[in-house]
Amino acid sequence: MFKAIVGASTLQDALDSVSVLVDECKIRLNEDDLSIRAVDPANVGMVDLTLDAAAFESYEADGGVIGVNLAKLEDFVGMASGDQLVELELDEETRKLNIRMDGLSSTLALIDPDSIRQEPDIPDLDLASEIVLEGAQLDRGIKAGDMVSDHVRLRVNADAEAFHIEAEGDTDDVDFQLDADDLIALTAGAADSLFSLDYLKDMNKAIPKDAEVTVELGEEFPVKVHYAVAEGQGNVTYMLAPRIQSE
Amino acid sequence: MFKAIVGASTLQDALDSVSVLVDECKIRLNEDDLSIRAVDPANVGMVDLTLDAAAFESYEADGGVIGVNLAKLEDFVGMASGDQLVELELDEETRKLNIRMDGLSSTLALIDPDSIRQEPDIPDLDLASEIVLEGAQLDRGIKAGDMVSDHVRLRVNADAEAFHIEAEGDTDDVDFQLDADDLIALTAGAADSLFSLDYLKDMNKAIPKDAEVTVELGEEFPVKVHYAVAEGQGNVTYMLAPRIQSE
Amino acid sequence: MFKAIVGASTLQDALDSVSVLVDECKIRLNEDDLSIRAVDPANVGMVDLTLDAAAFESYEADGGVIGVNLAKLEDFVGMASGDQLVELELDEETRKLNIRMDGLSSTLALIDPDSIRQEPDIPDLDLASEIVLEGAQLDRGIKAGDMVSDHVRLRVNADAEAFHIEAEGDTDDVDFQLDADDLIALTAGAADSLFSLDYLKDMNKAIPKDAEVTVELGEEFPVKVHYAVAEGQGNVTYMLAPRIQSE
Repeated sequence: MFKAIVGASTLQDALDSVSVLVDECKIRLNEDDLSIRAVDPANVGMVDLTLDAAAFESYEADGGVIGVNLAKLEDFVGMASGDQLVELELDEETRKLNIRMDGLSSTLALIDPDSIRQEPDIPDLDLASEIVLEGAQLDRGIKAGDMVSDHVRLRVNADAEAFHIEAEGDTDDVDFQLDADDLIALTAGAADSLFSLDYLKDMNKAIPKDAEVTVELGEEFPVKVHYAVAEGQGNVTYMLAPRIQSE
Repeated sequence: MFKAIVGASTLQDALDSVSVLVDECKIRLNEDDLSIRAVDPANVGMVDLTLDAAAFESYEADGGVIGVNLAKLEDFVGMASGDQLVELELDEETRKLNIRMDGLSSTLALIDPDSIRQEPDIPDLDLASEIVLEGAQLDRGIKAGDMVSDHVRLRVNADAEAFHIEAEGDTDDVDFQLDADDLIALTAGAADSLFSLDYLKDMNKAIPKDAEVTVELGEEFPVKVHYAVAEGQGNVTYMLAPRIQSE
Repeated sequence: MFKAIVGASTLQDALDSVSVLVDECKIRLNEDDLSIRAVDPANVGMVDLTLDAAAFESYEADGGVIGVNLAKLEDFVGMASGDQLVELELDEETRKLNIRMDGLSSTLALIDPDSIRQEPDIPDLDLASEIVLEGAQLDRGIKAGDMVSDHVRLRVNADAEAFHIEAEGDTDDVDFQLDADDLIALTAGAADSLFSLDYLKDMNKAIPKDAEVTVELGEEFPVKVHYAVAEGQGNVTYMLAPRIQSE
């Protein structure tokens, strides 16, 4: 059993955070929240989305799992304007999802959850640095790195209390530096790892420019990037595996 | 003899309604109005445009027929900003159309009208239902149908006094319903026909979102869609043949 | 030695005027100004840019010459928003250009100036007509010509005191006429030459629509087009060779 009513933009933003990484996913319809965990085909980038029952106008679920094609679901939800309400209801018999909004009723065929890549375990890492910054700043650093290379180095200079997004191209290089003053918060520890820009750019697409983004970073460890959605009643966590540093 | 002065956007909107269906057309320069009738190469969609003499700042014509390449004519007219006046004058000797606006004089070569597909007869049909709605609503229904299929079913539920735009895809389907309250007017009768979305999307491109659009609909009959242009001093009528319903 | 600080949009506009014609160029770091002269590979269009020291917040140079890839330099400068300051500093040892702005430090590898096409001599021509007009008017005439042909005729009618941009296509033609009233200034003399629209369109891309543009024109002679940049503390001059008139 699943029946919920939610603001169109809340749902759209949540789905966007997953669809930048995967085309299909399982959605867990838990009693207290809706959640999605997914990993890209190369096993490099993961996403963990939770949308609390409180993020919905109304929410009833009993723990089922459905499989969806994200692009189709986003198309259907996208027929509503930002502040319109969207009603979702699972038809257990036909295994279809009914999506209703003012004047428009749609039926979306679901995908067998067993045919979808298994949900990843998101490891509980103890990362030495935690950087809290605006989405717009992360965006600027990623754009700068993308001018000269296909990967960037994320690094904390603990002495100088600064966070760096650095990229070295064949001939050119960039260093985007945010001091403690530029950041919302910084817990500085040993942190220096290399990441693929392809993944960071995809994640960056979904991160609102005005979001408060937390980056957890270690030495040659995966990075965790998380931010709140649905006015704090939901959360997105990305995890991205590091590239090997070649010296 | 043909010489006329008209607001650029009035002319542009009128030409747009035809150019979504055909590349070339005959323009009839009647004494009291300018008119175009055209049918697409597959003989499925027709358009009938009339622009009354009153839609022009000045208008003199004596019943000639010219053939034009619509894209070129629209390019030329498009050099004027919306509220600028455009002067059209036929040079009978050279068989060219002189197009003048502030500072710019252009000469457009005409096409032999005999080389252009014959103008269609637009049959006078007695269709049981008449739905009057906003262009924006028609647009929404067509966009919804386009998500799941390449054709839509237009249907009136006479008992419920509702107009439906429905589409069935291989796995998903949508039902866009407008009740009497949502419509400007409804004369409900037996009306249920299937239409190609390719044509409806083309016609929809030309229909202003704020236009009051009248849809005349029957059972497995062509649909007529008409709306006023030039602040009521002109009219566009589309007619679209139905697709065979397969059950 | 070269070290300068300049508003991002001032630098970007100046570089744009050159990058519409060539991909790489030499930049002369003179004591009193920064200057670029370049000619396209076909030797048809030339550009001469000067940015006075006064156009910079601070400027120190001693006459060096550097070679740059313009697209890369523009990417780097483009990371700054319009009114942000950009600091440029030449590292003589590494032959790299350091580009710094708020939070972002980049290093751009330079190109050996000897590997770049030689700077053209811009001949000192005595052209009979001088037309001063708004960038937006030149833009309109070029767009009009582009509808029917790949070249336009620039012509001054000295008797009527009018400037014409004319184009003759295979079947259609346009005549864009600006009278003395429409122009900012006109010195009318014998002036009638044919030019490639490909080049004029490229130059037009860089000319601000609100710039006061001076066109110097003769009979089957190159045209000179110049306008001020950096609020009068810089200047761009284009020169374009004529096409042979075929009668």
